[in-house]
Amino acid sequence: MFADDADHARLTARRKAGYERKQARATLEKGLLIVYTGPGKGKTTAAFGMALRAIGHGMSVGIIQFIKSDQDSAERLALSRFENVDFQTMGEGFTWQTQDRERDMAAAGRAWLEVERMINDPRYALVILDELNPVLNYGYLDLSRVLETCCQRRSDLHLVVTGRHAPPALVELADLVSEIRAVKHPYREQGVKAQPGIEF
Amino acid sequence: MFADDADHARLTARRKAGYERKQARATLEKGLLIVYTGPGKGKTTAAFGMALRAIGHGMSVGIIQFIKSDQDSAERLALSRFENVDFQTMGEGFTWQTQDRERDMAAAGRAWLEVERMINDPRYALVILDELNPVLNYGYLDLSRVLETCCQRRSDLHLVVTGRHAPPALVELADLVSEIRAVKHPYREQGVKAQPGIEF
Repeated sequence: MFADDADHARLTARRKAGYERKQARATLEKGLLIVYTGPGKGKTTAAFGMALRAIGHGMSVGIIQFIKSDQDSAERLALSRFENVDFQTMGEGFTWQTQDRERDMAAAGRAWLEVERMINDPRYALVILDELNPVLNYGYLDLSRVLETCCQRRSDLHLVVTGRHAPPALVELADLVSEIRAVKHPYREQGVKAQPGIEF
Repeated sequence: MFADDADHARLTARRKAGYERKQARATLEKGLLIVYTGPGKGKTTAAFGMALRAIGHGMSVGIIQFIKSDQDSAERLALSRFENVDFQTMGEGFTWQTQDRERDMAAAGRAWLEVERMINDPRYALVILDELNPVLNYGYLDLSRVLETCCQRRSDLHLVVTGRHAPPALVELADLVSEIRAVKHPYREQGVKAQPGIEF
């Protein structure tokens, strides 16, 4: 990548100067609304990685899972080691597994009440709304109510929303949106089954 | 999204059938080579989320950080709660901060010896090579040696490689590649500083 050491030194010095200029201008603190969306793998795992980081800072984390129903998931088990994590699994399984729209809507409504409770509790520094995007996309929750709650939260609370098909209005409101694309995902076609530590 | 309940039922039934067909065909177990790349935020956090999931299954996880040098990072602190995690921070800071190519190459070489140790140790089920991609892109490690080690690992060992600019040959070898795009990342331009739980 670099022609020689002098070239390397020149390029890295320029990057360092740019980085330091940016840091010097950045003085605000602000609770961020972060969205992980797109068809690739890694949205929920990225949110859990953020939970881990926040826990390491001694921050309290709320997690609401809108779709997953597994009370014994590996993530839940690992996070149960920490007292400052409130992990609520509110889903009733994947929507194409339940095949019951009314039941899914009722589950989403119950999950949203938990979200409101966490958002209004000043102890939480980070609240993760796992798989909220598809729930909004299916119309299982009122989008305007969700956006209003996000807007009106206290100014230092970080929110992370995951799932495919983030609604445009949520993207508009967000401070950071990462889209995960599946560049390559061949192994499922090769007969490799879902494995612990990877898919669940 | 759905015209009515019948429409919903039809679509979800079709998805469920497709999902079940795919599951029935998938019978192999295989250690996967997974790559998180791209300019967006979430690559390292997704890898740590995978670590958390593996830990929850009682699997042993090795983590090598090629670039980060912080011995007191929040992730490291949180993961120190688990005995089945071996977390090695081998970097010397970001490369444009050190501005010393020889030192960076020496650090990369030491880190790679740790990787080989973990890969050859049958206790590990998952080894995370955090920020290996930029190290390869800078030419700090011999790519063919890295690829050979990945190829020759035991068949049930999962590897996760993170960082921008994954080399094409690594993408070629990988079982799963997720690219994280920054759809929206405005807050750094608005003077919001790096915050605990978000950037570090």
